[in-house]
Order: sequence, then C-alpha cells, then structure tokens
Amino acid sequence: MSGLTPAQARFLGELFPGDGFTAVPEETCAFGADASRLFEAPWAVVRPESEEQVVRLMAWAQEEGMPLFPRARGTNVVGACVPRGGGVVVSTLRMNRILEIDAQDFVAVVQPGVVTADLQKELDRHGLMYPPDPASVRISTIGGNVATCAGGMRAVKYGVTRDYVLGVRAVLPGGRVLYTGGRNHKNVVGLDLARLFVGSEGTLGLLTEITLKLLPKPEATASVLAGWPDTDGALGAARDIFAAGILPAAMEFMERDVLKAVAKVGEVPWPEGTGAALLLRLDGGRKALAADLDRLEQVVRSASPSFLLRGLGAREEEPLWEVRRLINPASFKVAPDKLSDDITVPRSKVRNAVDGIRKIATEAGLTVLVFGHLGDGNLHVNVMHDKAAGEGDRALQVKSQVVELVLSLGGTMSGEHGVGLTKYAHLGKQLSPLESEIMHYIKKVFDFKGILNPGKGY
Amino acid sequence: MSGLTPAQARFLGELFPGDGFTAVPEETCAFGADASRLFEAPWAVVRPESEEQVVRLMAWAQEEGMPLFPRARGTNVVGACVPRGGGVVVSTLRMNRILEIDAQDFVAVVQPGVVTADLQKELDRHGLMYPPDPASVRISTIGGNVATCAGGMRAVKYGVTRDYVLGVRAVLPGGRVLYTGGRNHKNVVGLDLARLFVGSEGTLGLLTEITLKLLPKPEATASVLAGWPDTDGALGAARDIFAAGILPAAMEFMERDVLKAVAKVGEVPWPEGTGAALLLRLDGGRKALAADLDRLEQVVRSASPSFLLRGLGAREEEPLWEVRRLINPASFKVAPDKLSDDITVPRSKVRNAVDGIRKIATEAGLTVLVFGHLGDGNLHVNVMHDKAAGEGDRALQVKSQVVELVLSLGGTMSGEHGVGLTKYAHLGKQLSPLESEIMHYIKKVFDFKGILNPGKGY
Repeated sequence: MSGLTPAQARFLGELFPGDGFTAVPEETCAFGADASRLFEAPWAVVRPESEEQVVRLMAWAQEEGMPLFPRARGTNVVGACVPRGGGVVVSTLRMNRILEIDAQDFVAVVQPGVVTADLQKELDRHGLMYPPDPASVRISTIGGNVATCAGGMRAVKYGVTRDYVLGVRAVLPGGRVLYTGGRNHKNVVGLDLARLFVGSEGTLGLLTEITLKLLPKPEATASVLAGWPDTDGALGAARDIFAAGILPAAMEFMERDVLKAVAKVGEVPWPEGTGAALLLRLDGGRKALAADLDRLEQVVRSASPSFLLRGLGAREEEPLWEVRRLINPASFKVAPDKLSDDITVPRSKVRNAVDGIRKIATEAGLTVLVFGHLGDGNLHVNVMHDKAAGEGDRALQVKSQVVELVLSLGGTMSGEHGVGLTKYAHLGKQLSPLESEIMHYIKKVFDFKGILNPGKGY
Repeated sequence: MSGLTPAQARFLGELFPGDGFTAVPEETCAFGADASRLFEAPWAVVRPESEEQVVRLMAWAQEEGMPLFPRARGTNVVGACVPRGGGVVVSTLRMNRILEIDAQDFVAVVQPGVVTADLQKELDRHGLMYPPDPASVRISTIGGNVATCAGGMRAVKYGVTRDYVLGVRAVLPGGRVLYTGGRNHKNVVGLDLARLFVGSEGTLGLLTEITLKLLPKPEATASVLAGWPDTDGALGAARDIFAAGILPAAMEFMERDVLKAVAKVGEVPWPEGTGAALLLRLDGGRKALAADLDRLEQVVRSASPSFLLRGLGAREEEPLWEVRRLINPASFKVAPDKLSDDITVPRSKVRNAVDGIRKIATEAGLTVLVFGHLGDGNLHVNVMHDKAAGEGDRALQVKSQVVELVLSLGGTMSGEHGVGLTKYAHLGKQLSPLESEIMHYIKKVFDFKGILNPGKGY
C-alpha cells in the first residue's frame, strides 16, 4: 500500500541505512497516528540522525514532490502529525542530543528530539530554568513544543515557547539550511524569522537545532488551593489577585464537573458543594516567598473561599497539585472517550465561556470538563462521550458549537494545541481571507511545492 | 524640489485637508531627519487621522509606485525614519488615542502615535504595567516601539516589545486592512503574523491599531548600586546574582570611562578608582521585596564591591538612578559628537566585548563609552568624537570595527535600535544570503512593489 516507487524506496533505504528507513506496514503503523487518535498509514518512515541526512532528504523530496510529515513523540492532540494524504513520516527522535547548556549565556542548544522534561532536569542541575511546561512535558519534545508553540501552566508569568526561542537551524525543502536568530537575548536585525517557525506546525522547514533562552531557576515555590461554591467566587478571587499586583507562576482553574470527577478517583480536600477551585503557585527567593504566600493567602481569603490550603516548598505543595494530576484519569471515569480542546478567551469572558459551554453540554446530554490556565484565559474543554454508545457525532457537534461560542466571545479556537487536522475545517471562522492568503504566500517562500506537512495549520 | 507631480500633490491635498498635507520645504524639513542626524528632504508629509485615510493613501501609493516613509516621533537613531531616495513621509502622530485599557483582559488597544510613557502613566492608575521601557519612553511612541521592537532596562526580566504585542491592525500597500492576532494572551492559530510586524521597521504595513498584553503592576521596587575597581568585579557579581536564582528587573552596567564622564557633571557616590558599576532593580510585593533586597545585597557584598548603596521604594532609589540618567548629558562633556550603537553579545562575551572596544578606542584615540543592559548582553557603545576637529571618519571606522568585533564574538549588531540606514551596509556581515533572500520574499508578500520604507532593515 506504500505510495513510494521502488526507486524512491531504494533512495530512502540508502540514505537511511539499517532501521533508519522502513516501509513495512507493521512498523510504520505506529507513526500514522498521534494523540488525536486520527490515523493514516504512512508510506514510509525515516529516522535521520544528522542534519546532512535531512539536507539530502529535503533536496530529494522537493525534486520528487514527496510529502514529508515531521514528527517527534506524536503527543499532538489535533492530528498535526498524521500523514493525511500519504507521504513519508520523518521522525526526529534520533536527533535527541542536548548540544550545549551555557550557564553564563543562559542558553541551551538542543536537537529537536530532546524530551522537554529531560532538558529541564539537566537544567535543574545547573540552577537554570526553561519555563514552558506543557502537560505533556515528560514525553513531548522541544521540536514538537516549538512546532506548536507549547504553553503550559507557567505561561501566565513566563510566557510560551515563542518567548524562549532565540534561534533555529532549519532545513528547507530543496535542502538549503537556514540558520537564523542566534544566542543573543536581544536581536533586531531583519525580520524575525526564528519566531515565525514557532507554532508553524512543521510547515516551513525541518528543525535540526534550536537555541533556547533560559532563566535563573527561582529558589523556591509555594502554592495555594482554594474553592468556592460557584465559578463567580473563583473568578472574583483571580481578579483580586491580579489587582493586588500579584503575578502567579500558575493560576489553574477547575470547574464543578471536574471537581466531581476528581472526587471519584481520589481523596479530595474540598467540602461538598464546592463548585469551582483555583490552584495557584508562586515562585521566588525563599524568604521573600513566605511573605508573598502570606499576601496571596490574605487576598484569596478576602474572597471568602469555602476552603483554602497552602504549601510552602515542594513537599508541602505536592498534595495540592495531586488534584490537578488526577483530572486526566478522572475524566475517563466520566466517559470512555474524550474530545479535547484548548480554547482561549479574553480573561473577562471566562465566565461567559464557562456558562455557554455548560449550556451546550446540557443540551447535548454530555459532560464537558472545563479546567485550565485561567491566568491566560486558556481553558481545556474535554467533551466526554461514549463512541460505542453512538455519542461520537454529538461530541463533534459540541466541539463545533464550543468553537462558535469562543469566537463569538472574541476568543481563539486554540491557545496551545494548534490547528492540525481537527480544527482545520473551522479555520475560516477565525482567520480572515487576507490572513490566510498571506500565510499561504509565506509558506510558499519556504516551501513552494507544499511538500511539508501539507493540509495542516492554516 | 518635490518629486510629486501636480496631480499627486492634488490627490494628497484632498485626502488630507488643512494641514494634514504639506509639501512646503520649511514645513517638511523637520520630517526629513531622525535622531541619527541623517537627513533627506521629504517630497511631502501627510498626517492621517483615520484608518480610512490610510487605506486610501496605501491604495493610491501602490498604484503610483510612490515610496512611503512611516514615522512617529523620529527618535530612531539608525535613520529608519529618513526618507532616503525621496517620497512621502506618513506621520502617525495624529493617530494617538488610547482606545481601550481593560484591567480584566489585561490588554490595551492603542493607536500607533500614542507616546509610550503616556500609556504607562494611564496604566499606572489602573494598577497595570506595560513593561517595555526604551530610554526614549517619554517621547517615543508605541508604533515606533513596535517598528523597532524596542527593549529597555526591564527586558532582562520582562522581555521586549515583541513579547507584548498580541494583535495589530495594519494597512498594506494596495489598501487592504490586515487585522491579525487579537486580545487573547495565548493564540496558536496559523502563522504568527502579528509578531512579524514587530521589528520590521515599517516595511510591511502601516499600523493603525496595536493590542498590547499587560501585566499587573508590582507593588514596589528596590535598587542596589555597587562598584568595583574593574570590569571583572562587576561581571562576576552579575554572574553570582543569576546563579543565586535572582532575576532582577534591571541589571545595568557602567564602564570606567562612563563613570569618569558622569563624575564630571554631578555628585557621584563612588570612591576614586571605581572602574565598573552595576545598577540593579528588583520588583515585587512590598514585604517580599525587603527580603529579596537583603538577599541581593548579600550576594553582591560577597563579590567584594568597593561601595554599595541600596534603596527600598521609589524615594530611596531615586538618587541611585540619577547616575544612570546623567550618562547622556555627561557624554557630551567628553566630545561634542556621538555615534551610538547598541550591540548585543552572549553574556559570557561581555568581557571580551568591553576589552575589545577599549582597544579599538585607544588605537583610534577616541573615547568610547560602554554601558547598558548587562542582563541581556546588550551594550550601548557611544563613540564620542569631534566632527569639527575632523574626527568624523575615525568615529565611523571605530563603529565599523566594533561591529566586526561583535560579530566575531557571536553577537548581533543591534539589540534594540534596528538596522535602518546606518547599519545597512553591514548587513551582509550578519545575515546569510539565504536569510536575506527569505526576508525579501516575505517583504514582497506584503509589499510587492517595495513602496514601504524602501532600503531599510534587511
């Protein structure tokens, strides 16, 4: 079933010797899906180990008009890694070396296949921090994080992946190597090409090296978990926190149905009837943090929570965060299937979003779990359903209604996950024809034959 | 001397009635120069007050192939506002309204002609902060800051203008209006066009509206000023600060000749023989800050400074920062003319940069003042000279040698100011042919006739 000609297969087999190339369906199969659970059989999979191989691959692919689908750990939930339409999957996982960590320049230079948590662990030993912390951090890679502009909980204070990419080496279709940006923390020479790659979903070039900006690791962290009878209580407290000039390193929100689900799988600290909770983290110098934690607690207490727990330092904080980690396993107690979204709305519209989503869910007779990064207005919306019970279409309809709602509130259909395949059909609702046109022309500047991850992103 | 035909002048006169249009040399003259002191007489100046006028202007200009030179307060030091080659200067200063400040969404929507300090003052009243603080903040505009990706002292902690631009409305040559990005703090739908405008030096479109991300304003600030006999002492202390996990909101460096110059114009707190100084600022909650300041002081004291002063809160800090403000007036006591640069090097190369620059200066017999944003490796290099004494060429040569030095250290020739005209000749030393090619093709996507600020930036 491979779409490759014998000559094409021979070329790839020679360029990627040993198990660097395979077109055996049993082997390529695992590279046809990602966390979206969409699937399309790849024609072949290649596993470059060097930029040189990528250069030859890209020269050949452009010549042949061969679609290439870059892929790392495949944790993408919108199908951005799925080789829709057929072509060769390019796994970056063998380019997985941390090339450099420089504690003076505050940069790390890594290959795209480095797992983000592995980098963070290594940085930890140097007293350094790379802030982006997507939920997938333990399994996803820097290359994948750059392709999607991954965010995470710390974004409210520290920003997203985009804010930490100083430079990239990218091989373009045709095989030319673009090295742009660099290791300087400030650089305003020419257009900002390096950051254009961030969030481009592998459509512009294949990254072989990424230079990241690092920060000094704060001495300590502290957390507060608090709940209210309803969403308004939690949102009011969030407003008060910002109004007090506090910028938390995490501001997570959990809605009623999430709390209920979590209570089913673990011990929970909140009283019956808690309808919304906030999970907050601060970071900073140890002594200062004690004062900041007191202040945060005071602000939150003024918002009359039904309960409040605090923790200073990792050991005390651990049980507070356990709750957050239970959300994913708990969700599958609600229903066996999940359509997950990561909409973002202006912060003042979170209330409208939560109400609207609840209404849509009620009408559809499905449970929708709403939680996430309140500080950014970035909410995860999990439409729980049972495909086997024929609820799949209804779930898709809910997802579609949620997108409409979010856009009507001035939001965006994706704050972190990207567009990939699953949101592609909705693109026209958010991007103007002019935006789309410009994006496609920019794509052509890099990839005029359109061979890189075709049909994704924009 | 106007390059406009009578028909062209008539069109502009009708589109911009009253003093919205002028081609009188005595009036246009002031729009021909910027802080680079380069000059070229504009053919005419127009002052749009509405996006509608800009749309009609851009449609007409593309039709006519008329070069347009966007301009705000002209504080640019690299000639990015100078209408080299002739054309119409478009002043954005009448589009100067703050359209919206939203203390819940943490966004401000402004027209390009808003003076940055005016916005900051207004935000202050709402307990909000827009972090970028270029030295020109009291006179430069948001539009200009976006065009150059302005930085400033707070960049070490908070990043630069790029990190705060969420959305833009831009009128493209031909008159189409691109509204891209928005007011969401996270957004990963399609390529990041909004940020492509940041630092593009007015070459892609004319901004009519900018949506900025805001942060809660920290409760208080604190500062430390300390000195050492030599550069190594100061750089060592800077390393220690970061290694202690402290991320200051400003980390300014002043080199020997700067300290000497400042001592000539004001009372200075340092002892004779001080060869380098650090000026540090922290921000945060008031109580926490007292603890953080103690800790910072302790770290700095461990690096054996020859003096150390500290201040908690604006009143105590004021005299410490007075020193920094004296640098500019002091520099003109050294020599009447200045060529100023804003090179950036990886932080570990600051010592090499300072030494190298001193050597170049000594050989040229000129005083070069080195100071700036050490936290980012972003140094201002002022080549002081006396044109009347025939030192102009030597100063230019020093500037050129400094660029070569910086690039040899892996640095960038501009961290904040941009390329404009004055660094244009050096571009080929920093950008690869492939980078330049891609930038020019991207430019063509927006402006295929090349009418917007031609000959600038890349």
